[in-house]
Amino acid sequence: MLTSKLIDDLIEIALREDIGHGDITSNAIENDSQAVFNFIAKEEFILCGTLIAQKVFKKIDPSLEVEFSINDGEMPKMNKIFGTVKGKTTSILKGERTALNFLQELSGIATNTQKFIKKLNSPGIKILDTRKTTPGHRILQKYAVKIGGGFNHRFGLYDGVMLKDNHIDTAGGIKKAVEKVRNNIPSTIKIEVETRTFDEVKAAVDAGADIIMLDNFKTEDIKKACEIIGKKAKIEISGGINLNNICNYSEFDIDYISIGALTHQAQSVDISLKFGGIL
Amino acid sequence: MLTSKLIDDLIEIALREDIGHGDITSNAIENDSQAVFNFIAKEEFILCGTLIAQKVFKKIDPSLEVEFSINDGEMPKMNKIFGTVKGKTTSILKGERTALNFLQELSGIATNTQKFIKKLNSPGIKILDTRKTTPGHRILQKYAVKIGGGFNHRFGLYDGVMLKDNHIDTAGGIKKAVEKVRNNIPSTIKIEVETRTFDEVKAAVDAGADIIMLDNFKTEDIKKACEIIGKKAKIEISGGINLNNICNYSEFDIDYISIGALTHQAQSVDISLKFGGIL
Amino acid sequence: MLTSKLIDDLIEIALREDIGHGDITSNAIENDSQAVFNFIAKEEFILCGTLIAQKVFKKIDPSLEVEFSINDGEMPKMNKIFGTVKGKTTSILKGERTALNFLQELSGIATNTQKFIKKLNSPGIKILDTRKTTPGHRILQKYAVKIGGGFNHRFGLYDGVMLKDNHIDTAGGIKKAVEKVRNNIPSTIKIEVETRTFDEVKAAVDAGADIIMLDNFKTEDIKKACEIIGKKAKIEISGGINLNNICNYSEFDIDYISIGALTHQAQSVDISLKFGGIL
Amino acid sequence: MLTSKLIDDLIEIALREDIGHGDITSNAIENDSQAVFNFIAKEEFILCGTLIAQKVFKKIDPSLEVEFSINDGEMPKMNKIFGTVKGKTTSILKGERTALNFLQELSGIATNTQKFIKKLNSPGIKILDTRKTTPGHRILQKYAVKIGGGFNHRFGLYDGVMLKDNHIDTAGGIKKAVEKVRNNIPSTIKIEVETRTFDEVKAAVDAGADIIMLDNFKTEDIKKACEIIGKKAKIEISGGINLNNICNYSEFDIDYISIGALTHQAQSVDISLKFGGIL
Amino acid sequence: MLTSKLIDDLIEIALREDIGHGDITSNAIENDSQAVFNFIAKEEFILCGTLIAQKVFKKIDPSLEVEFSINDGEMPKMNKIFGTVKGKTTSILKGERTALNFLQELSGIATNTQKFIKKLNSPGIKILDTRKTTPGHRILQKYAVKIGGGFNHRFGLYDGVMLKDNHIDTAGGIKKAVEKVRNNIPSTIKIEVETRTFDEVKAAVDAGADIIMLDNFKTEDIKKACEIIGKKAKIEISGGINLNNICNYSEFDIDYISIGALTHQAQSVDISLKFGGIL
Amino acid sequence: MLTSKLIDDLIEIALREDIGHGDITSNAIENDSQAVFNFIAKEEFILCGTLIAQKVFKKIDPSLEVEFSINDGEMPKMNKIFGTVKGKTTSILKGERTALNFLQELSGIATNTQKFIKKLNSPGIKILDTRKTTPGHRILQKYAVKIGGGFNHRFGLYDGVMLKDNHIDTAGGIKKAVEKVRNNIPSTIKIEVETRTFDEVKAAVDAGADIIMLDNFKTEDIKKACEIIGKKAKIEISGGINLNNICNYSEFDIDYISIGALTHQAQSVDISLKFGGIL
Repeated sequence: MLTSKLIDDLIEIALREDIGHGDITSNAIENDSQAVFNFIAKEEFILCGTLIAQKVFKKIDPSLEVEFSINDGEMPKMNKIFGTVKGKTTSILKGERTALNFLQELSGIATNTQKFIKKLNSPGIKILDTRKTTPGHRILQKYAVKIGGGFNHRFGLYDGVMLKDNHIDTAGGIKKAVEKVRNNIPSTIKIEVETRTFDEVKAAVDAGADIIMLDNFKTEDIKKACEIIGKKAKIEISGGINLNNICNYSEFDIDYISIGALTHQAQSVDISLKFGGIL
Repeated sequence: MLTSKLIDDLIEIALREDIGHGDITSNAIENDSQAVFNFIAKEEFILCGTLIAQKVFKKIDPSLEVEFSINDGEMPKMNKIFGTVKGKTTSILKGERTALNFLQELSGIATNTQKFIKKLNSPGIKILDTRKTTPGHRILQKYAVKIGGGFNHRFGLYDGVMLKDNHIDTAGGIKKAVEKVRNNIPSTIKIEVETRTFDEVKAAVDAGADIIMLDNFKTEDIKKACEIIGKKAKIEISGGINLNNICNYSEFDIDYISIGALTHQAQSVDISLKFGGIL
Repeated sequence: MLTSKLIDDLIEIALREDIGHGDITSNAIENDSQAVFNFIAKEEFILCGTLIAQKVFKKIDPSLEVEFSINDGEMPKMNKIFGTVKGKTTSILKGERTALNFLQELSGIATNTQKFIKKLNSPGIKILDTRKTTPGHRILQKYAVKIGGGFNHRFGLYDGVMLKDNHIDTAGGIKKAVEKVRNNIPSTIKIEVETRTFDEVKAAVDAGADIIMLDNFKTEDIKKACEIIGKKAKIEISGGINLNNICNYSEFDIDYISIGALTHQAQSVDISLKFGGIL
Repeated sequence: MLTSKLIDDLIEIALREDIGHGDITSNAIENDSQAVFNFIAKEEFILCGTLIAQKVFKKIDPSLEVEFSINDGEMPKMNKIFGTVKGKTTSILKGERTALNFLQELSGIATNTQKFIKKLNSPGIKILDTRKTTPGHRILQKYAVKIGGGFNHRFGLYDGVMLKDNHIDTAGGIKKAVEKVRNNIPSTIKIEVETRTFDEVKAAVDAGADIIMLDNFKTEDIKKACEIIGKKAKIEISGGINLNNICNYSEFDIDYISIGALTHQAQSVDISLKFGGIL
Repeated sequence: MLTSKLIDDLIEIALREDIGHGDITSNAIENDSQAVFNFIAKEEFILCGTLIAQKVFKKIDPSLEVEFSINDGEMPKMNKIFGTVKGKTTSILKGERTALNFLQELSGIATNTQKFIKKLNSPGIKILDTRKTTPGHRILQKYAVKIGGGFNHRFGLYDGVMLKDNHIDTAGGIKKAVEKVRNNIPSTIKIEVETRTFDEVKAAVDAGADIIMLDNFKTEDIKKACEIIGKKAKIEISGGINLNNICNYSEFDIDYISIGALTHQAQSVDISLKFGGIL
Repeated sequence: MLTSKLIDDLIEIALREDIGHGDITSNAIENDSQAVFNFIAKEEFILCGTLIAQKVFKKIDPSLEVEFSINDGEMPKMNKIFGTVKGKTTSILKGERTALNFLQELSGIATNTQKFIKKLNSPGIKILDTRKTTPGHRILQKYAVKIGGGFNHRFGLYDGVMLKDNHIDTAGGIKKAVEKVRNNIPSTIKIEVETRTFDEVKAAVDAGADIIMLDNFKTEDIKKACEIIGKKAKIEISGGINLNNICNYSEFDIDYISIGALTHQAQSVDISLKFGGIL
């Protein structure tokens, strides 16, 4: 997993912006010492991004050895070592900040996602991410959502159809929009329709939508909408859902809840990389 | 400002990850309609990133017109329009999500930075960012810190020297480390030494460090450290500073406080881009 | 449409390979003459690729004017002019060969696709392309299939699931494979299962596959397979279908026939770009 | 051979278009199994492209082992194994389609080229390719022509001079055009002049052209043109030559026949990559 | 001319290395002033590189206007203005150094080349450059050689054959080497053989070499070598030729003298870009 | 050191320009022979660039072994071997010219720099390079200056401030300019002010400039300027300094002399790579 060219390109940009024409401090004091550095958890979180951290260090110096004692999805113990980097000291110092920045960001998203899942406490409903991700980090952040127990919505405009107001108006109604799309997209892609009223829900069902999104429906209206759909399409709830109100949706017979806050309200967790001795 | 190749490369990755081989929904319902869309503030925040939003839309379609009624650094009114995009509807839909993701992120950082400045309430002390930024977004996020009223520490390993434990040990002490660096770096770069004890502070002063960082010093020790330094170097406080404890540092006679949380604890603000009519 | 970065990158490679360090002939005889050149159809075909031809010329010299009197999907008259390029003669000569190579290839595929559709003569069945495309040309060739009247299967490994023997064996059977996939892919993607026996068809139906591919089924077995499926999934026929045998499938109650030959057996059509006079 | 940056760039685009953000099927059913897959010839053809197939697999996963039991230029036996790929199953599945697409294309061109050579049956005449190649594939396709027994014309506008009508008119006649070119091109490049009449042939000889192309000359006129040239330049026949009419040129005392159909009328051969067992 | 992707890529690297994440001085004092700056010749030289200077400024800011009152190949008057840049002051300051560095380098090579030509004073002999050019600058430097009155040898390993000792030994002698090459290179490329003895010269003639290089022949041996060749091949002198000894070769009946010093011993000329007033 | 992406990109361009679609000579005579080649010094110089030469060969063929018997900064003996390349003959031939071109250029700069230092003969004054470097080669050339005994000025517009006339006028005087800059640049960067009169020197001191450049000051005025500054800032002399006049500055109490001629007046040294036998 995580072998996309997009990830390699992002790492390259990240190292260019941090290293530029060189690490002038280490270059001045350059030496051939080999050292070990330890990853330490400064708070509790779900670890995510070990592979990216490895890629960062390997890109700088393929001879570095990067190992983690726990896997993505597990929780390191507070103030304990959960991984090491061994090799040329100056190489480790070059990659340290970038590797940590990735680890802290992705672990933050995985941890945040799991909070939502626990609050919802309803295993039959899948919590989905959205396209509200940090530009350039989408693949990584969607991976972090999965590590945290969530599921992925479409990755971009190319692997899922979402018919919104504009598209529907332009096409001349939901029925025509769905038909037009059905004849133009790859045979492997589902069609989702965003709805705001019961009439739109009905029209989406009649048009044969694969997924119907109830956009900002009041909780009291969701049940009726579900009845209109009656298993003829998957049902997705969306709009303004946060850690405080997600528990209100636990009892509905729905398939998905999509939540932008999984990614754009997550904060970095605290991880440090401490010198562990000369080899 | 903001004309670096790094920013162009990041925008390119961001559009590749979102658009991939094409916007299959809009392509299916393609038409030549021209529309206006409005940027609306869904909460209060300091706007930042208008130029990046413009670049995103222009990259997709140079004929789009993107205008903002307020500048970076100003606050849009709640639920009011503060900018517009005009042009081909399908082009606008392609850029919408990426442009918003940038605007929301950068405005979040600018807003967060200003909170720190207000809490500190001490104009003589400059609040500095760190290298704890989202990989690939450093230039943008450091710009957002400035828009929020903060100042920039070095951009990367190439434009500033920070002598840490490792470097100092390798070189054989602070004095030797500073000398070695002085003879190897560009003549335009200052030397900063990270210190943890009064002895280290003294050694850094003697070595002629330009900036001395007091790393995780207790507030009760800072005053004595400042006396040791006695204006012979700039003084920077660092380590674990957050919105709750920053007010403890207001009265010290120091130059800088560097704070990772400016960037890595900031959250996206809420902005939407609403259809405003066919042209 | 056709705005992917992949297409820009392909055009760049194509021009690099043809122009290299320069057009040494035109450079030697350089002059500022402006000319018009005419696209002429040397045989009958369905035109496809006008936008790519334009992109090629514009990439070399944005001041060139490229116009076509008919659209993609229409047939130019034999030996007649169907488009023009106007501007600096040396710029036109630089782009001529690459633009023609694209036009001839894509028109060849569109024309070939239409032959299959006419032979099948069954509007209820969609003819699909495959991943058997020229490396680097997939988006263009899938576009050409649509221009010729066909439909697209998935664009790559990222926007559709196709469960084959290997995956199924590894997962421990069709049921487990479908389940595992359902929990890992984006919510917008369908699951297709490749089957070779009636038992596999039955298992795929039970597992809730969205699309079932009957791989190399004898025509006498297809009817029974369709009955097993009974509208619970879309049905796709595949394997060794060519212009000679496609008519054997016209009467089946199936959704799709996927055909590699649409792309990998197509041949370039004959188009020339003739000098039409100095401007 | 085949070490150009252009080839690496093409492979990169090819993998990006096929894999995108990931192979969602294999990722879902990921496992560490190691397998062997076998290349099998489903028809008779001249093999070409083994090195490219290797490069594709190695680019995805350097630990894959790719071996062929015959070399480029040899014919695999019908329905027999002629090569293997060993290693991580999911890596092999990621590269399979792209590697096959290249192999099938290039083997198709080599096979097609050899048909022309056998039909011509005149070892003293070299069959040349043209610039009518698939954009981005020129180096590969010219290699395939050589593997099939043909020879290469210039690779692009940068490594050969071809004076056509336009150039000649602009320069003020063949003599002036040749002179002007001679003084501007690298000393290592020959000058070829395209001719359509006996007068032009004569002028080209007088101007000292290195190669004279007889463009669309009737077979009955070729002999006289050759006499005019009288060994003072190499002679190339071109224009509308195909498998049906090439035998008409066998007896002429000419050096080259250039044929666009070698590349743009070739079709992919049928090769499959079959699972051969778990390692 | 000079439209190769290689040149664009070089300019991009040059601006990245000079501007990095931004011009921090101009950014701090940013303003919207428009100014004119003047190119002034601080010594006598042959101007070369106006187009590259333009490309540099246009790349930074397409609205800049760059004009030269004389063309490449002409000599500006000492201490006089020979060109101007007009537009946004901060944009001009960003491009100034890179544009000047190119202009000074290329004018230096053109000027140096002309010195060799004047010393040789033999219009029948063409002075050729070599591959001893600054890495990444080959196309530009070969252009400068032409502007200075010289001619180009091959651009690289791809557009000319040069058979040296190693190749000849490996192939089993000059005759076999020439034959082998003749059957493998494009039909548009000449074959040059490097010789060190009369026997080698004879063998090269017999093998049908197009160009014979007399490598480090003593002047007293050149005449005999020319007689051996007797117009059956072009003759090129090479090896250790400089401004002091080139006049020794004026009287020989040879075609080319190739000289590495044209490029690798050239020095930058002195040009400045002076502020000429606010617009 | 020397690990910047800029260097990798330059090497890539350099190999593309030299190898293009392939080394047609070696390809024609391809064989699997392994050989050793020796680097030989054809004159006296300070060696510089061994790491770059290694990178060039490794980029072409990672299995090549490149070794030098002396380090950068040492002087090889005239006509003696100082390094070897071992491995596949055709790979070595592909990299030979580019590796040599780099080595000759950088050794030329190191050698030239040392000449200046010896002439100055004043160890307390640091000789600095400038931004007058070959576009794309800045990092390499600044490294060569250090190897030759010199020191580096800023690398580009991003890691140092140099306030010139224009900036000062725009800001409204030296004082305002320095203040404005101080509030906008990273805390790690020094501010240098270019001065032409005693008044400007005084103003720069008062404004708190870190470095003051005396631009084209007459030698008789330098002493007074130094007195005005009185250790309150570093002092840099600049303007028209060459090997003939540098000794005039030996006795001044200054910190830096910056000299464009270190790089733009350096000439390549003479190094050859000779065949040393088959392995």
